[in-house]
Amino acid sequence: MADGRGRRTSIGARRNPASEAAVIAAARSLLQEKGYAGFSIDEVARRAGAGKPTIYRWWPTKADLFIAIYQADKAAAIAMPDTGSLARDLRTLVNALWTFWRTTPSGGAFRALIAEAQTNPASLAALRDRFVPQHMCRLREVFDRAVERGEIAPDNVEALVELYFGFNWFRLLMNRIDDDPDHVARAVQMMVEGARR
Amino acid sequence: MADGRGRRTSIGARRNPASEAAVIAAARSLLQEKGYAGFSIDEVARRAGAGKPTIYRWWPTKADLFIAIYQADKAAAIAMPDTGSLARDLRTLVNALWTFWRTTPSGGAFRALIAEAQTNPASLAALRDRFVPQHMCRLREVFDRAVERGEIAPDNVEALVELYFGFNWFRLLMNRIDDDPDHVARAVQMMVEGARR
Repeated sequence: MADGRGRRTSIGARRNPASEAAVIAAARSLLQEKGYAGFSIDEVARRAGAGKPTIYRWWPTKADLFIAIYQADKAAAIAMPDTGSLARDLRTLVNALWTFWRTTPSGGAFRALIAEAQTNPASLAALRDRFVPQHMCRLREVFDRAVERGEIAPDNVEALVELYFGFNWFRLLMNRIDDDPDHVARAVQMMVEGARR
Repeated sequence: MADGRGRRTSIGARRNPASEAAVIAAARSLLQEKGYAGFSIDEVARRAGAGKPTIYRWWPTKADLFIAIYQADKAAAIAMPDTGSLARDLRTLVNALWTFWRTTPSGGAFRALIAEAQTNPASLAALRDRFVPQHMCRLREVFDRAVERGEIAPDNVEALVELYFGFNWFRLLMNRIDDDPDHVARAVQMMVEGARR
C-alpha cells in the first residue's frame, strides 16, 4: 500500500519482510557510497521509499540500523571456527576479523560508530547494550566448546571475552590491523593460558 | 620580549620555561572550561599571549598539547605502585586510572581524543606514535620488576602491555569504569597468569 506520497504505509511493530529488505538494501548502498559520516535515517528512508517512523520503530537509532548491517555482513564474511583448540580458533577469528575490517568499508564505519558513541549517548547504548552482548553471544559457542573440552574454566569466559574485545578494538582504533601473525599468536596464547582451569 | 602586539616573540626550538608554563596553564584552564571539544591552539595562544607558531613548534597538534597536560596530570594523580606482586600492582593501577578518568575532566577528554583520532590522522599519530609509547615506557618499570622477580617471561611483556591497554580502553569507551573490583581482579589475574614464564 502506498500513502499517496510514494511511501509504503507503516505496518506497525510487526515487520514487513519486503520493506525491511528495502530499508537494509538502501542503508547498505548509502554506507558504501558515503561511509558512516554520510549515513542517516532520513536519507535511507528517502532511498527506500519508506516512512521514517517505520524505520525508527524497527531500529531506534542510526547506530542500530548500521549495527544490523554490520552484524549481517560480518556473519556472512566470518564463519565461527571449530578447530578443536581455542588458541587456533581465536587466531583464525582475529585474522578473519582484521581482514574484514581492512578490506570492506565496515572497518572504517565501525571505528566511526565507536567514535560517535563517545559523544552520543544513544549510539553508546546501541553499541554497549545491544551490539556487544549480541556479538558476545555469537562468540560464546567458541568459548563454550573450549569449556567443554576442559581448556578453560567456565568462570573465566566473561573476562576472557572482554580481553579479546579489548585487544581487537585497541588494534582497530590504533589502525594497526595489518596481518601480524606472531603478535596475534602470542596475545591469543596469553589469553588462553590465563583462562585455563 | 614582546613583539609590540602583546605577544612574546618566538624563541625558536629551544623552549622558554616561562612561556611553556603559560601555555600549559592556559591550555589546562581551557580544557576545564570547555572540554576537549572546545579546546583549540588558537584559543590557547590568545589566552597565554603566545604566538601560534611557537605553540605549534612545541606541540605539533592540538592532540599533542592535550597529551602533554593529560600525561602530567595522570603522573601527578597516579603513583607507579611497587607492591612486590604484578597482579597487586595492576589492580592498584587500574583502580587509580579509572578513578582518575571518572573524577576529573581527563577521562572525558581522553575519550574525545580517541574518537577524534578515528577521523583525524594527525591526532591518530599523536595518540599512537607518541602517547602510547610514552605511556608504555612509564608502565614498563612495573612490568620490568615482574620480570626481575621471575613472575612473567620477558618475551611476553609487549603483548601483556597491549592486553592491559585494550582492557582499560574498552572499559573507558563503553563508559564502564565504575569500581568493579571482582571483574578487575579476574581480568588482571588472567593477564598475569597468561604471561608467566
